[in-house]
Amino acid sequence: MSILVVGTVAFDAIETPFGKTDKIIGGAATYICLSSSFFNNKINLVSVVGGDFPDSAIQMLKDKKVDVKGLQIKKGEKTFFWSGKYHNNMNMRDTLETQLNVLEKFDPIVPEEFKNSKYLMLGNLMPSVQKKVLDQMIKKPKLIVLDTMNFWMDLFMDDLQEALKEVDVLTINDEEARQLSGEYSLAKAAKIILAKGPKYLIIKKGEHGALLFNNKEVFFAPALPLEEVFDPTGAGDSFAGGFIGYLAKTDDISFENMKRAVINGSAMASFCVEKFGTQKLTEINQDEINTRIEDFVTLTKFDSQLK
Amino acid sequence: MSILVVGTVAFDAIETPFGKTDKIIGGAATYICLSSSFFNNKINLVSVVGGDFPDSAIQMLKDKKVDVKGLQIKKGEKTFFWSGKYHNNMNMRDTLETQLNVLEKFDPIVPEEFKNSKYLMLGNLMPSVQKKVLDQMIKKPKLIVLDTMNFWMDLFMDDLQEALKEVDVLTINDEEARQLSGEYSLAKAAKIILAKGPKYLIIKKGEHGALLFNNKEVFFAPALPLEEVFDPTGAGDSFAGGFIGYLAKTDDISFENMKRAVINGSAMASFCVEKFGTQKLTEINQDEINTRIEDFVTLTKFDSQLK
Repeated sequence: MSILVVGTVAFDAIETPFGKTDKIIGGAATYICLSSSFFNNKINLVSVVGGDFPDSAIQMLKDKKVDVKGLQIKKGEKTFFWSGKYHNNMNMRDTLETQLNVLEKFDPIVPEEFKNSKYLMLGNLMPSVQKKVLDQMIKKPKLIVLDTMNFWMDLFMDDLQEALKEVDVLTINDEEARQLSGEYSLAKAAKIILAKGPKYLIIKKGEHGALLFNNKEVFFAPALPLEEVFDPTGAGDSFAGGFIGYLAKTDDISFENMKRAVINGSAMASFCVEKFGTQKLTEINQDEINTRIEDFVTLTKFDSQLK
Repeated sequence: MSILVVGTVAFDAIETPFGKTDKIIGGAATYICLSSSFFNNKINLVSVVGGDFPDSAIQMLKDKKVDVKGLQIKKGEKTFFWSGKYHNNMNMRDTLETQLNVLEKFDPIVPEEFKNSKYLMLGNLMPSVQKKVLDQMIKKPKLIVLDTMNFWMDLFMDDLQEALKEVDVLTINDEEARQLSGEYSLAKAAKIILAKGPKYLIIKKGEHGALLFNNKEVFFAPALPLEEVFDPTGAGDSFAGGFIGYLAKTDDISFENMKRAVINGSAMASFCVEKFGTQKLTEINQDEINTRIEDFVTLTKFDSQLK
């Protein structure tokens, strides 16, 4: 089934305890597209880059069957740029520089052929831009997933709350869930957030796994205890790409299938962090994904009955 | 099977965002005994209290079938006292006061009848005291579990390393695993720690669950997303009590059974934090424990095959 992906396509410069990159290809939509491409070949991208964005990177997306018709290229302008530095524990990072560039006046235009995409993934962006995309859809997609972050909660909470009324699944991290709800307990936070609109809430806890809530059940997916985490950039977006990619492929949005989608998303995130930027996502194959899913199954599996 | 439990029996005064207690009954061995009493009725306690320790608290332990023959009562002295204050996030706490009192010169004496206990739980204590108990055992217990903390790593790392050579299972939290190994990655830390002696390592991550490692496998037990955490004091000790209690009851120390033991320990910890001090552990019954084990099974269960 078709997925419409909206989000940033960008340059990142990343520093971690393991090394440092110059400008490399990044952006939420890039990670989402690459990750979901393992599950789906009808990925429609809406985003914006400047004239400085390399054709080779656009070609890489095309090679993954991403339809880039909705990728605006602003010739005389520059691509969104973010640079950041991770601390030793990899859970904290400092933003060193943000150049909004083409993102400053981004007006997302959804091509006609994309307007009835069955699945919609609103990657992390200004909430009013996410809303503009929602408003252009001809009919309500089967599933709308929205990712956001504390930055937008600080600046545009009203816009975000407005967008939340229309989404099916919200993905945020634990600190953001606390900020959005005003509750420290994630179980309580989930109840409050689900009352704001979303039918499902995914709380991403990085190295501590992810929680999936609906209004009566909860599912927990662990994170694999990895020996090396080189670069956490894009992990959340890779998760989202695997999650929606799996749902669109199976076209089943039951809670049971969402559990599998969360595990698939977690597997994609676990690959993403093993190398800098998008590199690992361009190297893996389906066999490796299957093996990793098995690792997730093994990690928490036990026989509750004594033999 | 018999369990020898060594650790503190103490007074605690606790402050959390939900309230404050005066001196209440606490101590690692108290929590371990109470927790393991749900699984086992041959619990042998070695500890020390002062003349100020109430008979009623000793009677409570006796009522739970704890053999208090090895509990030294120092008439003219005072019981170990700790007071602490938890921050809003419940993961951080400040120690407000520590009075070692009877603990200062504690010489653990293992009664003859306890010296061939099949299971040995060395609760959090000065490593040299833990070692003194080990040295008194007539034959090596079937399983030796040792719990420790950063405080002892700071002060008596050599003694701790010495004790570690003789234990089967080490239980510590994630920060302590990093301190003991010098590695941030828990997967790497586990390898280093297992090379120091223990055959199994349990890394307790509080609200993020627990990891069980041996030298080739890893198992992850989630923590239940609880609505209220009133008081984390004793959670790790309740975990240890449930863990060793379950193993002693089933008398099976295979890795598969240790997984079940970790889930049972996690269930006991999840009860412990729901009320102040030991209160909840004195109220629950076997049905409630069974129901909670089911909650743990449900939390991570998914069918990896699409129907």
